[in-house]
Amino acid sequence: MSVIFDISLSIGPDLVVWPGNPAPSLRPVMRCAAGQSSNVSELRLGTHTGTHVDPPSHFIDGGAGADELSLETLIGAASVLDLRAVSRSIGPDDLARAGLANGATRVLLKTTNSERWRERARAFSEDFVSLSPEGAQWLVARGVRLVGVDFLSVEAYGAPGHPTHHTLLGAGIVILEGLDLSAVPSGEFTLVCLPLKLEGGDGSPARAVLLRD
Amino acid sequence: MSVIFDISLSIGPDLVVWPGNPAPSLRPVMRCAAGQSSNVSELRLGTHTGTHVDPPSHFIDGGAGADELSLETLIGAASVLDLRAVSRSIGPDDLARAGLANGATRVLLKTTNSERWRERARAFSEDFVSLSPEGAQWLVARGVRLVGVDFLSVEAYGAPGHPTHHTLLGAGIVILEGLDLSAVPSGEFTLVCLPLKLEGGDGSPARAVLLRD
Repeated sequence: MSVIFDISLSIGPDLVVWPGNPAPSLRPVMRCAAGQSSNVSELRLGTHTGTHVDPPSHFIDGGAGADELSLETLIGAASVLDLRAVSRSIGPDDLARAGLANGATRVLLKTTNSERWRERARAFSEDFVSLSPEGAQWLVARGVRLVGVDFLSVEAYGAPGHPTHHTLLGAGIVILEGLDLSAVPSGEFTLVCLPLKLEGGDGSPARAVLLRD
Repeated sequence: MSVIFDISLSIGPDLVVWPGNPAPSLRPVMRCAAGQSSNVSELRLGTHTGTHVDPPSHFIDGGAGADELSLETLIGAASVLDLRAVSRSIGPDDLARAGLANGATRVLLKTTNSERWRERARAFSEDFVSLSPEGAQWLVARGVRLVGVDFLSVEAYGAPGHPTHHTLLGAGIVILEGLDLSAVPSGEFTLVCLPLKLEGGDGSPARAVLLRD
């Protein structure tokens, strides 16, 4: 039997969202308390809310949507790298120092951002740890297929031109954002990241777990 | 490497929904075409849309929500039973005849309903194949923990009192609805069903896959 680590954020009205993105909400459609047979709600949330994937169409008009991401990329061996010593921007030297194995396909970057989720911080903050464009290029050169980060964006807040996103998405790398890695040690796992099969979605909320035998 | 079967429905405006439930929609929030840096949307959909889980709180006020369902139940060995010979209601004899293994924990019922998805039927139809209350009791007695079906409800349309739902949810069984099993043979697999971690959700859309080595 595997140990299952849930690395997904809870979706509720208090969840921190990116500035300008709608807060998640549930609207009652049917209620037992109103004499109806069951409880049913309508969920409203941004496509980049909480734990979510960035498909190419997030930044590239005509690019693949959330429903077109390869499940073979979203499921498989993944390395959690400990980058908690990095204060702001993760570069090539940080990634090399963290000891990424040769041939690693999926990389999850554990930083001090994860502590924000543990504290259930309710306000957005611009000073999260992010991946530099050079760090993104380094991962592309290593043949990585999926990059996961523990804040709502892989990229520094307000970065002109969004070079980290464009470098990763342009290389066909799946970006997984909004992970909570606070309870996960560094090392090797099996990742299962399942976004909704959202036709043409420019992003999609996802549930992600790490499995270890 | 595993073979991955995606048994989830695509979520789009044409997806058939239960009568009275809202149709899924995407509303633009940011658009590259409008000079903004990226594409972001707001997703609106019912908690029981497409492939989704029924937690106890769907029928039982105060019952566990979608975010409280055990990942240990949602992930693990699963049996796909071929019940395509059943015309309307699956009973104990049908389940016994389909050859459910002793000790099976997760059971997915493949019926002619799955052909509806392959045809991408766009109209709701009341005459889908469902699980009888006696069939549900039989599964409870066998110690099953998760039951999956290939239409939007496990229960016959308009069944007074919803005894199949109450039998399963009352026994703590997770119900997974809206599967497309048309491309999956009967037999043994590893199921990974990941609903959104929706706080207090009376249901949640999910992505579900079957893995086979």
